[in-house]
Amino acid sequence: MATRHRRSACPISIALELLGDQWSLLVVRDLMFKGKHTFGEFLAGGEGIASNVLTDRLARLELAGVVTREPHPDDARKVRYLLTEKGLSLAPVLMELVVWSARWERTAAPPDEVKAMREQREAVLERVKRDWKRARTRGR
Amino acid sequence: MATRHRRSACPISIALELLGDQWSLLVVRDLMFKGKHTFGEFLAGGEGIASNVLTDRLARLELAGVVTREPHPDDARKVRYLLTEKGLSLAPVLMELVVWSARWERTAAPPDEVKAMREQREAVLERVKRDWKRARTRGR
Repeated sequence: MATRHRRSACPISIALELLGDQWSLLVVRDLMFKGKHTFGEFLAGGEGIASNVLTDRLARLELAGVVTREPHPDDARKVRYLLTEKGLSLAPVLMELVVWSARWERTAAPPDEVKAMREQREAVLERVKRDWKRARTRGR
Repeated sequence: MATRHRRSACPISIALELLGDQWSLLVVRDLMFKGKHTFGEFLAGGEGIASNVLTDRLARLELAGVVTREPHPDDARKVRYLLTEKGLSLAPVLMELVVWSARWERTAAPPDEVKAMREQREAVLERVKRDWKRARTRGR
């Protein structure tokens, strides 16, 4: 993506160009926190993403280097998606979105989880990283 | 916004419904980090937002309780926008977007600022809050 035209060099603007729509970060969420790795699992994610939108967002996330795709370890005719290290490092962004949303909106976020994200940030990040490593090495 | 229909109760999904497009968080950025408070200042923000899009995003942010509007202290015929406390509390989200983007993309983020956001998080948050308070009390 380094050569793509950017509207500005502001780091926030660039992040939003890569991730800024209502669906991209939900795919990252599914990969990061929900153990989902396939198109069908993302599609059944609960927010009702349309399959053409999902196809588009997965392609963008792949182009942005946030996800990769590879043959599924259970069935090589299927594809599974994995977060890259760049994708994994969005964990603090998602955690802060959870903390903000749980503070100001009525959400289904488990209070204990939110508290951990607020007060035991490093521990949550470690757990996310462990899950990420486990998913990546599965079937290898 | 509590009564609005939501696609799910997931806190990340809700946050993205409120904020998830390429422009909304740039307005928050301008208010939070750039001392901008008027429609004209946002419009000149550098990313080339169209005025109809800006009008729409400001209305949404107001409806979401993230910004408020009031007569401008310099000229009561003009409007100035201010972050609410809910808007201010997006600071950690924006800071994590800066840190992520500066790590993975080529950006104009000043390295010292990024380092401070990464390593002296509380100090940066305090500074942002101080600026926020100063802007709110200006002209009162």
